[in-house]
Amino acid sequence: MSGTKLYEGKAKILFTTDDPNILLSRYKDDATAFNALKKGSIANKGEMNCAIASHIFQYLEAQGMATHFIKQVSPNEMQVVAVKILPIEVVVRNIAAGSICKRLGLEQGQPLKKPLVEFFYKNDDLGDPLITDAHVAMLDLATPEQVDQLKQLALDINQHLQTFFDRCNLLLVDFKVEIGVDVNERLLLADEISPDTCRLWDKAISDPTARIMDKDRFRQDLGNIAEAYQEVMNRVLAT
Amino acid sequence: MSGTKLYEGKAKILFTTDDPNILLSRYKDDATAFNALKKGSIANKGEMNCAIASHIFQYLEAQGMATHFIKQVSPNEMQVVAVKILPIEVVVRNIAAGSICKRLGLEQGQPLKKPLVEFFYKNDDLGDPLITDAHVAMLDLATPEQVDQLKQLALDINQHLQTFFDRCNLLLVDFKVEIGVDVNERLLLADEISPDTCRLWDKAISDPTARIMDKDRFRQDLGNIAEAYQEVMNRVLAT
Repeated sequence: MSGTKLYEGKAKILFTTDDPNILLSRYKDDATAFNALKKGSIANKGEMNCAIASHIFQYLEAQGMATHFIKQVSPNEMQVVAVKILPIEVVVRNIAAGSICKRLGLEQGQPLKKPLVEFFYKNDDLGDPLITDAHVAMLDLATPEQVDQLKQLALDINQHLQTFFDRCNLLLVDFKVEIGVDVNERLLLADEISPDTCRLWDKAISDPTARIMDKDRFRQDLGNIAEAYQEVMNRVLAT
Repeated sequence: MSGTKLYEGKAKILFTTDDPNILLSRYKDDATAFNALKKGSIANKGEMNCAIASHIFQYLEAQGMATHFIKQVSPNEMQVVAVKILPIEVVVRNIAAGSICKRLGLEQGQPLKKPLVEFFYKNDDLGDPLITDAHVAMLDLATPEQVDQLKQLALDINQHLQTFFDRCNLLLVDFKVEIGVDVNERLLLADEISPDTCRLWDKAISDPTARIMDKDRFRQDLGNIAEAYQEVMNRVLAT
């Protein structure tokens, strides 16, 4: 049943392929924010994010990180390893921005002493609530060993991405990853790495609004959204 | 400066005494809920909670737990050790009830596989948000050693309180504690243990509303609030 739609998310659709261990991930132009309360689309986002994510997955693989990426097969499609996605959104923060500022009273733009890893329960009905290790165990979302691995993986990815984006003259403020478990119980970085899932600030710009190069331009109606994604893509592909 | 008001909280006032290591804690009839959005008073609550807390602190001391309790000195006043309260509300849950049900989609009354310890940042302006161990470290609220001690202390108190309330024919659904650090850096159970801070269900009643013997009667306007506190006090003092 090659080509059957397996799952449609907010930004991508997953299809089966001839090989049960391989899926096709098609990136969409649709953009959502605030748990899909805000909906729209960003021109050409599917192709831009597919190109950015493909490039970054290959970079991370070259650094020894295990990802679900196999190969890009069209401008907005990539083949990926079929994995079971853990129902945990893993967020890594280097600088306070977005929800954490309101939640904990931090100042937007305040650097954190060290990278902060947060888990959120991937559950749209509940609005993806923050969870602790104890909640992960209570809800059987992952084993204690997987929790330890998730944290280390998140910090390792952060270190590699910080290096990479620094070369792009972009500051990696924070990002969200989803992790999948493959048939051999290995944890693979899945989903995507793109301006949809990372906060990226242009290091050459000090103005707190002008420097935003990610989905916050959509969330906050700042304009020049597609242009920011295009600029990120140009820098990523050149790095 | 004996008798100077040091701090007035929602349910108690702390005064200095002749001894700088000893404070006087006066229990009030004032009742608040939902971060003080709901305000009222419960007749005689100050005296009832002072009697309940005094009895339970003495029970816990007899079980080897360190508390701030020294002695009851009037119907609504007790002497306590002067401590620095950690800005963390520690919640222990045996059964799902209240905020966690909405937050994580659990059914009210659902027993948890094992006791769950949660930390909340004691900050009224932020609405006492849930925090993880990583947030505690980031915000410098406690040392990693204190975090481990807090969790063990919370579980130990839970075990002792479950035994105690079981003898009162009351089910300990969940409770909140505050922990203080004394001059010797020892962690002491502080604040109070009462129907203001515990969810207690009458084991002899199956009706989910009628069995409620705690501040939820105030939160949910269920009536017979003072009567429930009185009944808890009678059973506690007889145990």
